Order: sequence, then C-alpha cells, then structure tokens
Amino acid sequence: MEISQRAQLMPSSPIRKLAPYADEAKRNGVHVYHLNIGQPDIKTPQCGLDAVKGIDRSILEYSPSDGYLSLRTKMVRYYAQYGIYLSPEEIIITTGGSEAVLFAFLACLGPGDEVIVTDPFYANYMAFAISVGAVIRSVKTSIEDGFRLPSMEAFEEQITPRTKAILICNPNNPTGYLYTRKEMQRLRDIVKKHNLLLFSDEVYREFIYTGMPYISAFHMEGIEQNVVLFDSVSKRYSECGIRIGCLCTKNRQLREAVMKFCQARLSPPLLGQIVAEATLDVQKEYLRGVYEEYLERRNFLIDGLNKIPGVYSPIPMGAFYTMAKLPVDDAEKFCIWCLSDFRYEGETVMMAPGAGFYTEPGEGKHEVRIAYVLCKEDLARALVILQKALEAYPGRL
Amino acid sequence: MEISQRAQLMPSSPIRKLAPYADEAKRNGVHVYHLNIGQPDIKTPQCGLDAVKGIDRSILEYSPSDGYLSLRTKMVRYYAQYGIYLSPEEIIITTGGSEAVLFAFLACLGPGDEVIVTDPFYANYMAFAISVGAVIRSVKTSIEDGFRLPSMEAFEEQITPRTKAILICNPNNPTGYLYTRKEMQRLRDIVKKHNLLLFSDEVYREFIYTGMPYISAFHMEGIEQNVVLFDSVSKRYSECGIRIGCLCTKNRQLREAVMKFCQARLSPPLLGQIVAEATLDVQKEYLRGVYEEYLERRNFLIDGLNKIPGVYSPIPMGAFYTMAKLPVDDAEKFCIWCLSDFRYEGETVMMAPGAGFYTEPGEGKHEVRIAYVLCKEDLARALVILQKALEAYPGRL
Repeated sequence: MEISQRAQLMPSSPIRKLAPYADEAKRNGVHVYHLNIGQPDIKTPQCGLDAVKGIDRSILEYSPSDGYLSLRTKMVRYYAQYGIYLSPEEIIITTGGSEAVLFAFLACLGPGDEVIVTDPFYANYMAFAISVGAVIRSVKTSIEDGFRLPSMEAFEEQITPRTKAILICNPNNPTGYLYTRKEMQRLRDIVKKHNLLLFSDEVYREFIYTGMPYISAFHMEGIEQNVVLFDSVSKRYSECGIRIGCLCTKNRQLREAVMKFCQARLSPPLLGQIVAEATLDVQKEYLRGVYEEYLERRNFLIDGLNKIPGVYSPIPMGAFYTMAKLPVDDAEKFCIWCLSDFRYEGETVMMAPGAGFYTEPGEGKHEVRIAYVLCKEDLARALVILQKALEAYPGRL
Repeated sequence: MEISQRAQLMPSSPIRKLAPYADEAKRNGVHVYHLNIGQPDIKTPQCGLDAVKGIDRSILEYSPSDGYLSLRTKMVRYYAQYGIYLSPEEIIITTGGSEAVLFAFLACLGPGDEVIVTDPFYANYMAFAISVGAVIRSVKTSIEDGFRLPSMEAFEEQITPRTKAILICNPNNPTGYLYTRKEMQRLRDIVKKHNLLLFSDEVYREFIYTGMPYISAFHMEGIEQNVVLFDSVSKRYSECGIRIGCLCTKNRQLREAVMKFCQARLSPPLLGQIVAEATLDVQKEYLRGVYEEYLERRNFLIDGLNKIPGVYSPIPMGAFYTMAKLPVDDAEKFCIWCLSDFRYEGETVMMAPGAGFYTEPGEGKHEVRIAYVLCKEDLARALVILQKALEAYPGRL
C-alpha cells in the first residue's frame, strides 16, 4: 500500500514551503502583506452577487456536462468583441480554468507525450502534466530579455517525435509578458510546420496595459484546428471561488474527446454558472475601473521596485504579476527569512520564490514573483518593508 | 495531431447512445419518462437555498484547497451520528464525489495498477480508471443472486501483484444492494490479508430501506489506514448541481498525496460549500420525508415491475436504483426502440441499458437500470407504458 509515483512526483506549489512560516508569523501577531497570491481584493460585480441572491429554483440540479447553453451563448458574444468567433458548441464550460487544462491534457497527451512550455511558467501546468503522465520540455526566457518569446530554433531544438503541443500563457503568469503579433506568428509557424496543438491560456486578456494589441491564438490564420483556448472568469470579475472556466476549440474530434471527461464528472458547478452568466452583463464601467486600478498598481509597484537598490523588475505588459530580481543569495531563503526572522514595525511581506516557476534546479534563484492584487496603500507599505528587509538580510549580495 | 489513447478508450455513458433518440422523440412532442437518470425531483432543503440567497460577501474568493474548516467541522458531527469518527483534517472537500474518486485514483493507482470492483458497477469508475491508466478487474455479481458479495475466493482469483485496491459502492449504484456485516467483514479480511486499499463509495447511506444496519468501511476494525471513503451531498439533499463531495481517510500519507492534486486545482466551489454547510443543519423531518418518499417509490416500483409478465427485479435495499431483467432479445435495442418507435398515448420511457454497467461484452444484455427518482404518479404511468412496450416489442423473448 503506497501512493502512486505520480503523486510522489507532483510538485508542491511555490509557496507551499512558506505557508507554515506565514502561519507562525500571524500567530505571533505579525501583519503579513501577501504579495504571493493571485486572490484579488477587487469586489465581485454586484450583478453577479445579485444573480445568486435572487435565484428562483427549488432544486439545485445537475447542469449539462458542457454547461448551460445560455452561458455558452453569452460567451460567444463576449469573445466576438475580441475578434474570436466561436459557436456555442465550440465552448465547453469547465470547473475553473484548471479543469480546462487537465481535460485538454487528458484528451491529448498520453504517457510520455511532450508539451513545450516557456520557462518560467505557472507551476500548476507541471502538476497537470504529471497527473496525465506527460512530460514538460521548456524553452527558456529570461528576465534580462524581459521574458520575450525565444526563437523558432529554440523551440525546434525541443521538438521530438513525442511532442504534441506548445502551451503558452498570454498575457503571462508569472512574468506579465504579452506576446507580440510577430511572436504569435512565429508560434503559428512552428505549430503548423510540426502539426502541433497550441494550448493558449488567455485568462488575463482584460489586463493589458500597453498600447499593444491583444493577439489571441484564435487570431492566427491556418491553425484554427490546432488551437485550444483555456479561459476563466475568476480573474476578470474577481470571482475566483465560483470555479467557472472554459475550454474552446474548433477541433470537433478534440471536443468529443474532452466531452468524455466532462461526462465522467457529470457537470460543472450550477451556482457558479449563474454568477458567471450574470457577470458577463457587467457594465463596462466595472471592467474599466478594475483595469485602471490594476494599471495604477502596476505602475506604482514596478516604479517602487526599481527604486530599491539592487532590485530589478521588467515592466509587465499584462496580467497582475511581475518577476523581480533581488540582490540576495537565494530568494527562497530570503522569502522564508522575511516570514520567520524579519519584522518592520510588526509587519512583513510574503512573496513567491521564483525557483518554483522554473523547471531546472538553480533557475530563478534570485527572483520572486510579486502579485499586485493589493490596494496601492498596501503596496506602498509592502515596498517599504521589502526595502528594509533587503537592507537587513544577512545573505544580501 | 490526434487524441490520446486514453480518450479513445474512455467509455460513453450507458445512456449516451440513447440521447439523440430521446431528443428526437421530444422534438416530435412525445413525453418521455426519465427512468434513466439519478437527478431527483425532490426539493433542495430551504435552508440551503436560503444560505445562498442570503450570502453576505463582496468578493467570491478562493476557498482553501481542502475546503472550509467550518464545513469540515460540521461534517465531523454528521459522520459521528453514523459511528464514523473523523477529525476535520481527515476530511478533504472535493468538487462532487466524482473528484474524490479521480483524486484517490491519481494518488494511489499508477499506470497498470489494478483495482477490483464488483460487476455491475457505476460506469464512471471505469472512466476515472482509464483517466489515470489503471485497470479495473471485476468480480461478478448477478441478478439471480440479488447481487450479493462474491466469495473471498472469487476476489482472490482477481488479485495480482498489481492489485492496489478494492472499490465498493454501498448501498450500491446500480443494483441497490446493501452489504451485510458479514460481507463487510469478508472485505476487511481480504483487504487486510493482501494489504490493499478499500475505496468505499457511501453516498447513498441515507437511503437504506431494510431493518439491516448500515455498515461503513470505517466501522471495520484493523483496516483504519486502508479505508478511503467517497461521499457527496448531492443525493442526500437533492443538490446535485452544487458539486460538493469529500474524500475521507485516516491515512496521513495518502491525504498528503491527495492534497497535491487539490492544490493544483486551487479550490472546490465556494458557493456549493455555503449551501452544503447550511443543509447539514437541515431538520430531521426533511430527511425523514425524503426517506419515506423513496421508500414508497421503491415499494411501488418494484411491486409494479414484478407484476409485469416476464420482468424480474430484486428488491433494492438502498440507493434509488434497481437492475431489472426484461424479456427482450437485447435491452439496449429495446431501450432505443422505446424512444424511436414506440409511443403509448403519446408517451414513452427512457431507461439505462444494463450492458453499460458491466465490463464483459454480452453481460447485462437483458437488464436495464431504473432510477426511482420520479414521483409515484409518474412511476405508475411509466410502468403502464413499459408493460405496453414489452407487449408490442418485436424482439420480445
């Protein structure tokens, strides 16, 4: 009686090791500023809350395995605003964006099959790959280059007969990078040449802070059958708890395969679908307000980070994370030390060590991921604390 | 570019093939009595509906990956009523009972590992086994024997060096069988002797219609570390859409492994947890009312089935399904024919062909699964239609 090998291989989340130190600090009355997580402090749209408060049902029953048609029909209109033209049956509602990733992997990747991801990447991609027995091969990007997409050759070096897909996150978590049209065309060319799938996680499309256009994988001509889009309403409407995402693809064979996994788990959450459907009607003012809030936070945070001696952060173009380089011997040790040993006026900060987002041991050793999901006043305070911590840290470089 | 082998192997649900015929019949104005599904027509408890209508939150945020402590604490008290003594950390909240099965399989079964199940069984167990690359080996039970648990020898014949677990559903879906204390002790002896896990799906514990006691896998002494309980609030409180279940185990190593998969998908549904926590306070009258309703439906249905010439159904002791034997050449053909060719006064019935619940081709060919989740008036009408259909069916034996 023992646990499976895949369970043994499953990575811990990048902040898992830090959690007990944070708990201990809080027990000792220390206030911890959470720069480590993606749980926004932005309010959920009132129309979403009202929809669930006003539900008029006497039975909370199963929904269809692919989600309510009314929700999928609304999503069709939502995507059309972004030049993504789908029919309702090309959209499958999932339990969060997470399930979309898992089901795509289950449907497309057999044991030993490979998927290429740009390094650093969202740590749970690795967890889902291990869950299905697939192998992640990574193409490195670096903070010095601002995390730009590597060359076609760098991708082709990683392609083997087992390669089934390329997976991107655009705008990117953890780097905040936004792919240019040229970069997306490069990806299209690789995908087309080698007949690969292109898994494109675009959950942060509302959060793009430059004049640059948002280029969806679905905007690329000639690979319409290769694209699988992962999406989620969690971040867009600050309703992470409702667990509603979706998987979109024009590839019918792939949809039928994904649907088998959907049917096995019966249905996505009913109440979350009710909230999601209502929030799709949210006033443009809400999204504009949220956008402006994040833009201001981003500018404030990046400016503040780069003013701290020895700290460097590229300017993230989207999402609400940045990878910052710190002048420390080991960012994980530093993050733990901030929680266990350091206090500034009874407060400290929690950040996600960068190494957890890279595949190779030793990579990201001097980096942390910082989420700017706290209000500006809190970010200001957190920046002061970070600067003081770096001044006091014994392992400073 | 092709779908994975596991996606190709994934079974369709036993009623998948029938769905287009049912849709077509409905389009033609035919009323279809659904005896095929487990979606009860019982009302969700008002306190659950009120909890969600009354939510007082401005952000619908992530919950902990193992679910809210307040919900798990209430569940501790719920289980204690059944002589199952757990601590909150021994309970992990999942997205429906389905996710509990999937995560247990992911954590315990590697590719090629085997799990023994009594045949016929809930079809989605096969889907989850295929998802993780595990192999189901089945021990046959039969309608003639009332689906009793097979002998120790029958189980031991299926045990190989790859056998990791035995999986039971008690009370059973699809058979309605309830394991006796002796049968549970037999399972305990096998599990102990061969150091296996015992996966026990006990979602129907509230629906036991005999004087026989409910014997949980957790009641068995000496295998406390081997037991993994799957549960769901869906059926108990008629709230299938909220997608809240749980996985309970006293085995710490296994919990830690399961938690890695929980963390990868971030959190179970927030709103469902709010409903589930409230419904755990439901008045005993609600559950008694539901129980009496199902008891009456069961008695009425089984009595009615056995009065139809050539039809035989054992008396299910629990859950809300029965497997019935019909005097037809092929139950699947008959079920399709009912939808496509037969009408009685503009109405027909839909049932789940038995073959979909068996592993071996040819098994269950004369059986159907009938759910008694419709009100008595509808069941009465469905019985009349079934009798007329059997009289008219060209392939009658």
